[in-house]
Amino acid sequence: MIVASTNNKVAALARRYGDHAVPAAGPWNGTLDLLLAHRSVRGYKPDALPAGTFETLVAAGQSAATSSNMQTWSVIAVTDPDKKAQFAAIAGGQKHIEQCPLFLVFLADLSRHHRIEAADGVTLEGLPYLETFLVSAIDAALAAQNAVIAAESLGLATVYIGALRNKPLEVARLLALPQGAMGVFGLCIGYAAASAVVEVKPRLPQAAIAFHETYKVHDEVALRRQYDATLAAFAGRNEGVADTWTRRVMNRLGQVRMLGGRDKLKDALQALGFPLR
Amino acid sequence: MIVASTNNKVAALARRYGDHAVPAAGPWNGTLDLLLAHRSVRGYKPDALPAGTFETLVAAGQSAATSSNMQTWSVIAVTDPDKKAQFAAIAGGQKHIEQCPLFLVFLADLSRHHRIEAADGVTLEGLPYLETFLVSAIDAALAAQNAVIAAESLGLATVYIGALRNKPLEVARLLALPQGAMGVFGLCIGYAAASAVVEVKPRLPQAAIAFHETYKVHDEVALRRQYDATLAAFAGRNEGVADTWTRRVMNRLGQVRMLGGRDKLKDALQALGFPLR
Repeated sequence: MIVASTNNKVAALARRYGDHAVPAAGPWNGTLDLLLAHRSVRGYKPDALPAGTFETLVAAGQSAATSSNMQTWSVIAVTDPDKKAQFAAIAGGQKHIEQCPLFLVFLADLSRHHRIEAADGVTLEGLPYLETFLVSAIDAALAAQNAVIAAESLGLATVYIGALRNKPLEVARLLALPQGAMGVFGLCIGYAAASAVVEVKPRLPQAAIAFHETYKVHDEVALRRQYDATLAAFAGRNEGVADTWTRRVMNRLGQVRMLGGRDKLKDALQALGFPLR
Repeated sequence: MIVASTNNKVAALARRYGDHAVPAAGPWNGTLDLLLAHRSVRGYKPDALPAGTFETLVAAGQSAATSSNMQTWSVIAVTDPDKKAQFAAIAGGQKHIEQCPLFLVFLADLSRHHRIEAADGVTLEGLPYLETFLVSAIDAALAAQNAVIAAESLGLATVYIGALRNKPLEVARLLALPQGAMGVFGLCIGYAAASAVVEVKPRLPQAAIAFHETYKVHDEVALRRQYDATLAAFAGRNEGVADTWTRRVMNRLGQVRMLGGRDKLKDALQALGFPLR
């Protein structure tokens, strides 16, 4: 493993938290440099990926932990331009879905287990529960994050597309999903367009999200105001609108209509074969 | 980035899938070697971690993507022996929770946003929805997986503890969680006890979980029987019981009582402040 210099560590932490909120982190190495350098990229070159890239990313994904080894997730590689355009439309016009050479859809997938029921003549009583859906969504997320790390280590860029949940039934139709499978999110994979590479996005200071022994917040409003300033400066430099975090929270979660249809997610899941008992 | 040899790649894939199911993976490097080598470890040395390890892992976690940058997760570091023993009991007697020097509990956390409502006199209409709970659980999972990769890159071992969901209300009480926060899973961090290091666990062949353009399964029962044999051989060598995967699926999901109380998860979440609308 490459051992990174202290300079790398402090610089990486300053990019992630801002100069005034660098945490007292300990051990460090090249993998930490890779993880800390993550940014979501919303513009891609048309360049094709090396042969076998999907299989490499799937191997990384399958190497993540999966609850009780139940492997309740699947992934579909979408490269067809028409289909990518339909996903871009579902996601509210996110052009990077059309641009990227490889669009992955990660599935919460209990259908494989339903097929075991059918093939072996058994009943899996645990499948209809909210718990089991949650496990499948978490399994998909752990796998996807491993795929993201793998992609970034290979010089590729990524962005998650949660907006597939705007229209889960349409996603299921496009992918010919069986009952018990649902597209949890998409993931663009490709080479970043130079114009789409932004700075590392600052996050809330560690004091606001990481606690010891029990949940204890101190000076939370002050931490938030500090972060509001840090994020507004980032946004002004990189996104053309110097919004604070608080304003973005209001914009994203203030009104139900901003959920883009996801306020109906429970109904959609039930229609897709997840009773959420 | 370290460029791994082709030998590394084939060996890593053979460990993950078995000799007869090596996928045609493409690009490879030292990060892929790290990801592919993951195994969950259920026994720890008492050795303390280097100072700042928690902060390093949190920085890795916060560097993962988070939906719309809403940052709807938190993490609590538990090192108190009494508290770890209580978590071990909640998890059905998992002694490794007591052994590991650092036990992390990852939270789906909308309470921070509820505090914004209170502090700023606003209403965030999006918070009560199933969608927003799902986002918070996925955010927590992406962050946790980054922490796992960081830990493993530093020579530490990990294991996720989903069994915290057996008793979410008791977890909330132990951690003094506010309304709108819930322990999604735990994560043991520490140095692996030599006796606890097992082989890499084989997964389903890629043909069973990864598809192109649409969901299409071929010869699924044959793939499962092949995997049953691979996993039974692994289990015989490493776990003392040569169970097939199919048998483990039956044991885990066949009967509601095997959910360990998680069939009541919906009620627990509602009591914790997630209406799941």
